[in-house]
Amino acid sequence: KVNPDRLWDSLMDMAKIGPGIAGGNNRQTLTDEDAEGRALFQSWCEAAGCTMGLDQMGNMFARREGTDPDALPVYMGSHLDTQPTGGKYDGVLGVLGGLEVLRSMNDLGIKTKHPIVLTNFTNEEGARYAPPMLSSGVMAGIHTQDWAYARVDAEGKTFGDELKRIGWRGEEEVGARKMHAFFELHIEQGPILEAEGKDIGVVTHGQGLSWTQVTVKGKDAHTGSTPMPMRRNAGLGMARILEKVEEIAWSHAPHAVGAAGHIEVYPNSRNVIPGEVIFTVDFRSPELSVIEDMEARLRVEGQKIADDMGLEVAFEKMGGFDPVAFDEGCVTALRNAAERLGYSHMDLISGAGHDACWMNRLTPTAMVMCPCVDGLSHNEAEEITKEWAMAGADVLLHAVVETAEI
Amino acid sequence: KVNPDRLWDSLMDMAKIGPGIAGGNNRQTLTDEDAEGRALFQSWCEAAGCTMGLDQMGNMFARREGTDPDALPVYMGSHLDTQPTGGKYDGVLGVLGGLEVLRSMNDLGIKTKHPIVLTNFTNEEGARYAPPMLSSGVMAGIHTQDWAYARVDAEGKTFGDELKRIGWRGEEEVGARKMHAFFELHIEQGPILEAEGKDIGVVTHGQGLSWTQVTVKGKDAHTGSTPMPMRRNAGLGMARILEKVEEIAWSHAPHAVGAAGHIEVYPNSRNVIPGEVIFTVDFRSPELSVIEDMEARLRVEGQKIADDMGLEVAFEKMGGFDPVAFDEGCVTALRNAAERLGYSHMDLISGAGHDACWMNRLTPTAMVMCPCVDGLSHNEAEEITKEWAMAGADVLLHAVVETAEI
Ligand SMILES: NC(=O)NCCC(=O)O
Ligand SMILES: NC(=O)NCCC(=O)O
Repeated sequence: KVNPDRLWDSLMDMAKIGPGIAGGNNRQTLTDEDAEGRALFQSWCEAAGCTMGLDQMGNMFARREGTDPDALPVYMGSHLDTQPTGGKYDGVLGVLGGLEVLRSMNDLGIKTKHPIVLTNFTNEEGARYAPPMLSSGVMAGIHTQDWAYARVDAEGKTFGDELKRIGWRGEEEVGARKMHAFFELHIEQGPILEAEGKDIGVVTHGQGLSWTQVTVKGKDAHTGSTPMPMRRNAGLGMARILEKVEEIAWSHAPHAVGAAGHIEVYPNSRNVIPGEVIFTVDFRSPELSVIEDMEARLRVEGQKIADDMGLEVAFEKMGGFDPVAFDEGCVTALRNAAERLGYSHMDLISGAGHDACWMNRLTPTAMVMCPCVDGLSHNEAEEITKEWAMAGADVLLHAVVETAEI
Repeated sequence: KVNPDRLWDSLMDMAKIGPGIAGGNNRQTLTDEDAEGRALFQSWCEAAGCTMGLDQMGNMFARREGTDPDALPVYMGSHLDTQPTGGKYDGVLGVLGGLEVLRSMNDLGIKTKHPIVLTNFTNEEGARYAPPMLSSGVMAGIHTQDWAYARVDAEGKTFGDELKRIGWRGEEEVGARKMHAFFELHIEQGPILEAEGKDIGVVTHGQGLSWTQVTVKGKDAHTGSTPMPMRRNAGLGMARILEKVEEIAWSHAPHAVGAAGHIEVYPNSRNVIPGEVIFTVDFRSPELSVIEDMEARLRVEGQKIADDMGLEVAFEKMGGFDPVAFDEGCVTALRNAAERLGYSHMDLISGAGHDACWMNRLTPTAMVMCPCVDGLSHNEAEEITKEWAMAGADVLLHAVVETAEI
C-alpha cells in the first residue's frame, strides 16, 4: 500500500506552483509555471532514484530500472498542465500518484523484471493549444510534430517556440519508445462514482470527442442607427446555433453531451452589432455513429440558421478522437487489484479524453479513476479526499507491479 | 461655400493616423494614435489662426475671436476618436468639417460678432471606456469628473491615468464654459438619407439609449464528463437572453432597436462549460416609455430564463440617455441654410448618440447630417462621397455664421 500522507503532501506542494484565484490552479502548458512544476517533479523523481528522459515534445519519462535488460517498460502517468481555472488533481493525481507508486516500491524494496517509466505528457488540456492530448497524440502518430509545433495560442505564440522558451524541449525522437503496457490514474471528473458510493472506477471505454470550430459572419454595424430589418447580427446567429447544439446533444441523451466553451466576438464593442463570432462546439459520445450524427446535424442546422438570417457560416473540424475500448488484460489487472485491496469498484466509461486514449494505440492500456466531489472538474473548486487518492494509487501500484512482474 | 478638396484632403490625412486593418481606423480614445491625431488637429487650428484650450477631460477648444468682446461663442464640433474597427468619418467629419468652416471664413475674410469655438470631445465612442459621450457628459454635469477618471478599459487602465499618459489632460475646469449655441455635423450612420436621395438631414430629435450589463453565472465544469442534466451552462443562458433581446426589440419595431455588441465568456476554454458570461445589451428608441419597457422586460424575462436553467443573473445599468429634442431655433437655422444653398433636405431622428445630445442641456443645439453608403457605420468600410461631406460643411458654415452674426 502507498503512503497517503506523502502523496497528499506532494499534491499540495505542486498546487503551490501556478495557483489560481479561487483555490485551484492556473498552470497552463508551456508557461513559466509549467516549467517550475516540471523542475519540481524532476527533482522528486531523481530523489526516488529515477533517470529522466525528455523528448522533442517535452514529454518527461522518469525511469526505474528492472531486472531484465531485455524487458520492455511498463508505463504509467498523466499530465501536470491545468486549465486556466483548473483544479489541483486533474492530471496531477495521475503523475504524482505514479510517483507515490515508485516511492512505495522503494520503501518496500520491490524489484520488477520490467522497468517502470512514469510519464508527464505535455499539453493534455488543450486549453492554451488545441487540440487536447497533443503530445501523446504526436507519440501515437496521430499528429505530426511539425503540425504540433505550429499550433498557436490566443496571443499568437507557437507551441514550438514556447516549448523552447521554457527550456523543456528534449533531444529524444518522439514516439520511438516501445512499451509493455500503459496505466493512467485520473480523477473521474464526473458524478458517477460518488453517486454510486464506489472507491474505484475501472475504465473499460473512453467516449469519443469532436471539436468543430464555427465561424459566423454578419456585418458589424451601429447598434443605434441600423434598423432591425437591415441587421446581420453574427452574435444572434451564434445564440441560435448554441440553442441547436443543446437540442442536438439532448436528442441523444444520456449517450451524448454538447456545449461551446470558447466564444470570441468581433469587434466586441458595446455599440457595434457583432460582425463575426468564432466558437468551438464540443460534442462527445461513447458511440462513433452518434458523434458523426451530431457533427453532421450541426453543419446542416447551423447552415440553415445562417441562411435564414443572411449570415455566412463555416465549420472546421478542430480535433477529436474516436471512442476507445481499453485492453482487457490491463482492465482485468486493475479490477483484480481493486478486488484484492478490498476497494469497492465498478466499470466506467470515461467522459473526458486522456493521454491513455492515445497510448492505447501503441500498447495495451487501461485507466483507473477515483471519485471527485460533485463530479466537478475544469473548475478551481475541484476536490477529492486523501482516501480517494490513496485508493487510486494503491490500485495503480498493484496493477503496475503485477504487470511488471516481480 | 467651403473648399471640398481641402476638407477631403484633411479627412484623408487624419485617416493615416491609427489605420485599421480593412481601410478604416482604429484610433481609440487615449491611445498614442489619439494623441497623434490631436497634435495634427491642433497644428491645423493654429495655422488657421485659432488659440487652443484644453480642459481636464482632454476636450479641445479651438477659438476664433469675434468682434464683440462680450458675446458668448458659438460652438461646433464632434470627436476624433474611433471604434476599434471604425470608419474614417464618424466624428471626424464633424471636427474637420468645422475646421473647413473656419478655413473658409478666413478665405472669405468673414468676421463675426460672436467668437466661434471648434471642439474635439474626448471619448465619444465609449468603446474603450463606457459610457459613450463621456467627456461631453462631464461638461453637461451628467457624470462627475472623478467617476469618469475611474472608468477602466479591458486591460484595467483607468481613463484618468491614460489621459495623463498621452499628455492631453489640461488645466481648465470642465463645464465652466458659457455658450451661445452648439452645432454638430455628423454622418447619418443610418440608411434613410441615401434611400430618400437627400443631401442633408436636419436632426430634430435623438433617440434615447439604455445600456444594461448582464452577468449570467452558472458553474464551470468539464464539457465531456458532466452529464447534460447536471450542467449549469452560462453560455446557453446568454444565448437564450440574446434571443429574448431580439424579440423585445422587434416587439417595438420600427420604433426600437436592440442587440448585444460586447460579450465575454469565462473561463473561455474549449472543454469548459462556461461558468460566467458578461454582456451588454444596447436598447434604443425615440420614446422614453419604450426604452423603459424594454429595460424592464429584459430584467423580468432574463430572470425567468436564468431561474428555469438554475443560473444566477444580475443586471446593472451601465449608461444611457433619454431621447433628446433639439432647439427649434438652431434646427431652423440649419434648415434655412440647406434651403438657401439649394441642398435637398429632410428632418431626421438620430439613431446614434452624439456629444450634441449632452450640449443640448447647456445651450441651444442642433445637428446636421450627411448620408453614408448603405447606412453603414462602426465598420471599417464606412464610406461617404466628397459631395456629401461638402454639403454638410456648407450647411454648417451658413448656420454657424448666421448664428454668430456678421
Ligand atoms: N481529462 C481532461 O480533462 N482532458 C482534457 C481533454 C478533454 O477535454 O477531455
Ligand atoms: N455616433 C456614435 O456612434 N456615437 C457613439 C455612441 C452611440 O453608441 O450612439
